[in-house]
Amino acid sequence: MNTPSPTASASVSEERLWQLLMDVATYGATAKGGVNRQALSAEDTAAKKHVVQWAAERGFTTFQDDIGNLFVRRDGTEPTLAPVMTGSHLDSQPTGGRFDGAYGVLAGLEALDALNDAGIQTRRPVVVVAWTNEEGSRYSPGAFGSSIFAGVSDLASVLDNTDAAGAVLRDELARTLAETDVPMRAQGSVTPQFYIEAHIEQGPVLEEKGLQIGVVSSIQGIHHLDVVIIGEEAHAGTTPRRSRKDALSSAVAIISALEQMTSDADDITRFTVGRCEVQPGSPNTVPGRVHFTIDLRHPDRAVLTSLVDRIRVVATEKANPCSVTVTDNLSVDPTIFEAGVMDAIRQSAQALGLGHMDMPSGAGHDAMHLATICSAGMIFVPCLGGVSHNEAESATPGDLAAGARVLADTIVRLAND
Amino acid sequence: MNTPSPTASASVSEERLWQLLMDVATYGATAKGGVNRQALSAEDTAAKKHVVQWAAERGFTTFQDDIGNLFVRRDGTEPTLAPVMTGSHLDSQPTGGRFDGAYGVLAGLEALDALNDAGIQTRRPVVVVAWTNEEGSRYSPGAFGSSIFAGVSDLASVLDNTDAAGAVLRDELARTLAETDVPMRAQGSVTPQFYIEAHIEQGPVLEEKGLQIGVVSSIQGIHHLDVVIIGEEAHAGTTPRRSRKDALSSAVAIISALEQMTSDADDITRFTVGRCEVQPGSPNTVPGRVHFTIDLRHPDRAVLTSLVDRIRVVATEKANPCSVTVTDNLSVDPTIFEAGVMDAIRQSAQALGLGHMDMPSGAGHDAMHLATICSAGMIFVPCLGGVSHNEAESATPGDLAAGARVLADTIVRLAND
Repeated sequence: MNTPSPTASASVSEERLWQLLMDVATYGATAKGGVNRQALSAEDTAAKKHVVQWAAERGFTTFQDDIGNLFVRRDGTEPTLAPVMTGSHLDSQPTGGRFDGAYGVLAGLEALDALNDAGIQTRRPVVVVAWTNEEGSRYSPGAFGSSIFAGVSDLASVLDNTDAAGAVLRDELARTLAETDVPMRAQGSVTPQFYIEAHIEQGPVLEEKGLQIGVVSSIQGIHHLDVVIIGEEAHAGTTPRRSRKDALSSAVAIISALEQMTSDADDITRFTVGRCEVQPGSPNTVPGRVHFTIDLRHPDRAVLTSLVDRIRVVATEKANPCSVTVTDNLSVDPTIFEAGVMDAIRQSAQALGLGHMDMPSGAGHDAMHLATICSAGMIFVPCLGGVSHNEAESATPGDLAAGARVLADTIVRLAND
Repeated sequence: MNTPSPTASASVSEERLWQLLMDVATYGATAKGGVNRQALSAEDTAAKKHVVQWAAERGFTTFQDDIGNLFVRRDGTEPTLAPVMTGSHLDSQPTGGRFDGAYGVLAGLEALDALNDAGIQTRRPVVVVAWTNEEGSRYSPGAFGSSIFAGVSDLASVLDNTDAAGAVLRDELARTLAETDVPMRAQGSVTPQFYIEAHIEQGPVLEEKGLQIGVVSSIQGIHHLDVVIIGEEAHAGTTPRRSRKDALSSAVAIISALEQMTSDADDITRFTVGRCEVQPGSPNTVPGRVHFTIDLRHPDRAVLTSLVDRIRVVATEKANPCSVTVTDNLSVDPTIFEAGVMDAIRQSAQALGLGHMDMPSGAGHDAMHLATICSAGMIFVPCLGGVSHNEAESATPGDLAAGARVLADTIVRLAND
């Protein structure tokens, strides 16, 4: 009888992974049990430094690039081969949860610990990454860390962006890079062969079906728009309705018409106005300016493009008597993940006897940008009630460990490919 | 031939008044020629200190009360008589103009100079006042300085109010009182016999008719409401429309229905949503909370009350699937100014050969609270295009001086009453 060769998954520790998740959840912890760890904030940087310290304790190499993406590298036996990369992001929504993003990074670190403990050498290096600003809540657009890494966008296009308080990204980035304090590597110096990202589902499907593993097949396309309406400030008591150019009134008419337009019978289109700023914001002054954002998603590229075109038309039609400008902020085509990577994930789950299914992703992820430069895929685990972008977001230690086991074995499969 | 007795108006100086207006307009001056001098800000306090300095140079008594209302007193020959009070406010909207409020205070000071120059003694003392926070843009509700002075509301009800940045009124008030640094007088220790307030019209009527003086007959009633909608934060990419509790979507439905409900054929009702805050305010998170304000005005008390009742019903009807709370913030009945005071203003304008008309006020003013405790009236002068609550607000030196002349002579009439 042969001794079975050790697997990485067998060395994944549910307790160790959970402890690491809880340790990182202290950075930006909120009273309601979530996190507020927005991109490039002090809390975000503190979480990155925790990862740097973690890597230093184990002798792994760490480095960062000029947009602040942080990398932890475990060497392979063939140093010239392109690495298997895994990870996600450490930044959160302003009222975000403990697992969205952080899980993908920390499951990657747990996989490295498991590889060490199991004494497994891989041909390819394995690199765990924490991408900068996936959420896009503090700085637009979302996922620009992975986007710049993949060459989909460039650094210069975001440096002058400001957050709601007026802080310029250039300054916040410089501070983060200095405080993280690990060696810099130029963009383009590391190109992965494979990228695999573990993430909570952020939807209710796995929980409903009682399955622990989602093999992600696609990500719907995303289009972000900024809508700015210019009216005229006027006195709320003296200005008759016929003389007003009320920017909020026009915004209400536009949003109302767009909600109607995007209300498809099968409830596939995702239309969200998440930010709306009204100026000057005084109760007794007719608003002179409104800025709102549109987040539009659809799995079909042609439908998405057509909806964006119609949004422009409707906004212009309904803005009267104000003027309106509609600006593109982010446009990401639907992503179709590679069959070979999906196979590797499916086989790992199968070998571990874990219930799994193929499924699309409703949310965007850094993997969508990585898919443009390498073979990419994603592993989903269930989250409570499908809730995310919410402090109440939750997931079980067991499900999170199951995902980390599939991740660890998939990394080994791909790293020896 | 008799030497005509000197009039106060003959000593009003157009140049001196204009210079004083321009000097005070430097506090909080904006690049676009307006002012940002919100209540209890450093700029507002600096403007108050300018008035204190002005009074000190002339030997007038100054004092303040516990809500920061600032008073300048010129003695009369019969010190036991209740004073004639005149004034307005020095605070402005965040993007306000140079004349709204400041004109009433500074025209009062110009009248005091004119009384001195003309060597006129009055029986009653004359008191010029700068009321705290008429605008209500930084701290709600508006006009609480005069409201507390008149006993319409009390100090304790506002002390814990916060501005958008979280600064507590109690602290900002304490700082202002300390920096203004003039003796305190208890509330109730000064009750005027007459109150007369000069103000720019903030509407287009006088300009259209080519008249310099408006004799104000009434102020429409005002009702302020706060509407808070609670939904549920959710991920913009993963949450289907049928599962959403989108607080902004409900806000849009409510505002849209209220606009329709308040659209009267004769365009008398004034309905304004001036502030709207959306939380968490992230482009890719379905909003979980929206707070917006309603400023509702009508000259008929019964109509106003009925509209407020209907607003509550409509808000509740349209909030689904979110929950909504509607809170009263301010309720001021329509004001009818006293015939005797209107007569005094009319006679002063007549004697000076200035074109005048009786007219209602669309805007609320501190005079509405003073009218509850004494004989009150108002003098309007034209402003360019009727524009106010806007940095472009403008008025001519000639019209402003005309108003100050009518004010000065009216003060003398009433102070010798």
